[in-house]
Amino acid sequence: MKFANQLSQLGTETAFAVSGAAARWTAKGNKVYPFHLGDINILTPESIIEATAKAIRDGYTGYCPGAGIAELRDAIARDVGRKRGISYDVDNVSIQPGGKPVIGKFIMTVMDPGDEVLYPNPGYPIYESQIEYHGGIAVPYGYVETVNGFALDLDALRDSITSKTTALIYNNYQNPNGAQSTREEMEAVAALALENDLWVLADDAYYEVQYSGQPMTIADIPGMQERTVILYTCSKRFAMTGWRLGAAIGPSSVIDVINKLNTNAESCTPHFIQKGMVAAIEGEIIGPEDILNTLKARRDACVNGLNAIDGIDVSTPNSTFYVFPNVNKIMERKGLDDVNALMEGALTMSNVSFCTRKHFGRPVQGESNDYIRFAYSGIDVADITTGLGRLKSYFESID
Amino acid sequence: MKFANQLSQLGTETAFAVSGAAARWTAKGNKVYPFHLGDINILTPESIIEATAKAIRDGYTGYCPGAGIAELRDAIARDVGRKRGISYDVDNVSIQPGGKPVIGKFIMTVMDPGDEVLYPNPGYPIYESQIEYHGGIAVPYGYVETVNGFALDLDALRDSITSKTTALIYNNYQNPNGAQSTREEMEAVAALALENDLWVLADDAYYEVQYSGQPMTIADIPGMQERTVILYTCSKRFAMTGWRLGAAIGPSSVIDVINKLNTNAESCTPHFIQKGMVAAIEGEIIGPEDILNTLKARRDACVNGLNAIDGIDVSTPNSTFYVFPNVNKIMERKGLDDVNALMEGALTMSNVSFCTRKHFGRPVQGESNDYIRFAYSGIDVADITTGLGRLKSYFESID
Repeated sequence: MKFANQLSQLGTETAFAVSGAAARWTAKGNKVYPFHLGDINILTPESIIEATAKAIRDGYTGYCPGAGIAELRDAIARDVGRKRGISYDVDNVSIQPGGKPVIGKFIMTVMDPGDEVLYPNPGYPIYESQIEYHGGIAVPYGYVETVNGFALDLDALRDSITSKTTALIYNNYQNPNGAQSTREEMEAVAALALENDLWVLADDAYYEVQYSGQPMTIADIPGMQERTVILYTCSKRFAMTGWRLGAAIGPSSVIDVINKLNTNAESCTPHFIQKGMVAAIEGEIIGPEDILNTLKARRDACVNGLNAIDGIDVSTPNSTFYVFPNVNKIMERKGLDDVNALMEGALTMSNVSFCTRKHFGRPVQGESNDYIRFAYSGIDVADITTGLGRLKSYFESID
Repeated sequence: MKFANQLSQLGTETAFAVSGAAARWTAKGNKVYPFHLGDINILTPESIIEATAKAIRDGYTGYCPGAGIAELRDAIARDVGRKRGISYDVDNVSIQPGGKPVIGKFIMTVMDPGDEVLYPNPGYPIYESQIEYHGGIAVPYGYVETVNGFALDLDALRDSITSKTTALIYNNYQNPNGAQSTREEMEAVAALALENDLWVLADDAYYEVQYSGQPMTIADIPGMQERTVILYTCSKRFAMTGWRLGAAIGPSSVIDVINKLNTNAESCTPHFIQKGMVAAIEGEIIGPEDILNTLKARRDACVNGLNAIDGIDVSTPNSTFYVFPNVNKIMERKGLDDVNALMEGALTMSNVSFCTRKHFGRPVQGESNDYIRFAYSGIDVADITTGLGRLKSYFESID
């Protein structure tokens, strides 16, 4: 029995293998300090839970439109538009079972086989997987370290554009490195999209996970709204990762296609979850601020714990819930040349579990720095502090 | 800005246009008798609702594995295996957001562009759409009318198989025509699959919607389990259409691929819905029998109401919640040659809304019969009787 050839181009999230290793180490009786997964161990706000439980009991258990229920599309259009200072309406919103489905559906909508799509690398691994699975050429662009964190390597990005480039994936508030663009950097990215007539996927998953200042969007730069699809998710802001509720927001011509893809793929997103979310948005959701405060305390504990390690010097990210330290000096001290060996050693020697740069896209030839990623969304401050103390002992030892 | 060329091959469910027309007619102040959509206006069993509400409150709101939670995979494996007299385990089950996603994921797993896939036509329109969207050649097979309903046109099916045929989609307990195979017919289909080394998608969506006798599965015929993927859904049996909960069940080699497609597409199916379903399956779900009794009474009212119309003679389907009468004589009486004109006339002249054969796959050249489809899952007995009485007046009139 044969399988489809194209499956050889399908990637995955290799981070789940790290979860597996952590679970096996836990099963052997060890207490693991889990920094590997971007899940959130904070409760979803009570008002969302109650509104959803009520919606189930009220019988919102039948099919709803593939595009989503009009009230939720409208509520998200208004919320997203208001926050970004631009205008969206119902026809600009397609409800999705999570933010992730937007990646594949965007690519299916705008890319032909053989087209080139620019994507951040290191970055969320599903970009690369979906571009290549659908027959495109995934063209990575990278970041350079600055004193303030990471900046886009704009020169390299510009040089990567060819006549075959169709789209650019832009994950401001970046996973895994926490990068966020200055206004100038964002305008430079927009200028490239405009000059080269590119579609843009603005992966805004962490738009609302900001510890200070106002988030920015590339969609509000003149000429950009009509070529930008925003990946929106309830997962991070409302601690709703396992609810699977998100949306694609963009030009109605794109959204119409994505709605048709919904009808082919999953029919619709669960009806009562949508209904509950409408009630929650229209009321006052108490919780997002607490979630952010909790995450901020963890961020500080994580950055402090890492900077206490001799050989690590990482700046404090203002968004996302990730820290992405350079570990060149640790690798050198330990005589390692594979950053995943450092990860494996850390688990068994210090019980600390994390992902590495290798879990976020195929490493690009010539990379000279090694990075590891700490997600602090699923671990409390006390465990962050204890875990990183243990990691310090391991990282500072010679073997 | 360009769109992907392959979108020209993407179909949809045109039945939603019928819903739109019905809604517009309702908005003009008319009471519409809705036979057009296979949604269910019956409440989901209380135990499932309560278990799910509890699971949300208990904090099952974070990510879970892309394959689904082990307890639900195991519960479904045991339930489906026991009912079919075959053995499945956890590794044979991939949880899905509904039954529908199994169609596309099966095709992506086993079909290469240019491969031929046999599919029922009339049949669920997403088969045709997904085969063609992914670059395959959709080869229709049909049914012949017998005194007991519809039988597969086995000779035509056999003649359609070529060296390029990779898979066969088999929807026993069929939408839209309610066909169900005899054991002999099912064995003949299995023999074709075995002789020609075909993968089989067994769309078992209506497996548990049986009014008498034991349902049968093609998977229990020797040699078939290892080449068959079952499309399983909670939608019909538990009146959970809008919950979006289903599964792909088949050889672990296929399920492993489908799990990877899950990770790329939607990450996972909502965690608390899975958790609630486990509790419901492990307890006693009171409800499915009542749902079936309700549907049976509607079926009888629907078949009786249709057979009271001069020119209609339809047998009583033993499964699904559809009736698919031949309307050749009505078309002739009214001097119509487009069955959709009959549908449009029925809506405005009798307030009765239904789909036609044209909503279930591209009509095949040379078709000489006209059919319309009545779904009785979303309409009560009283309205069935009144609606079909009104339809009788319209169908029996000359214009």
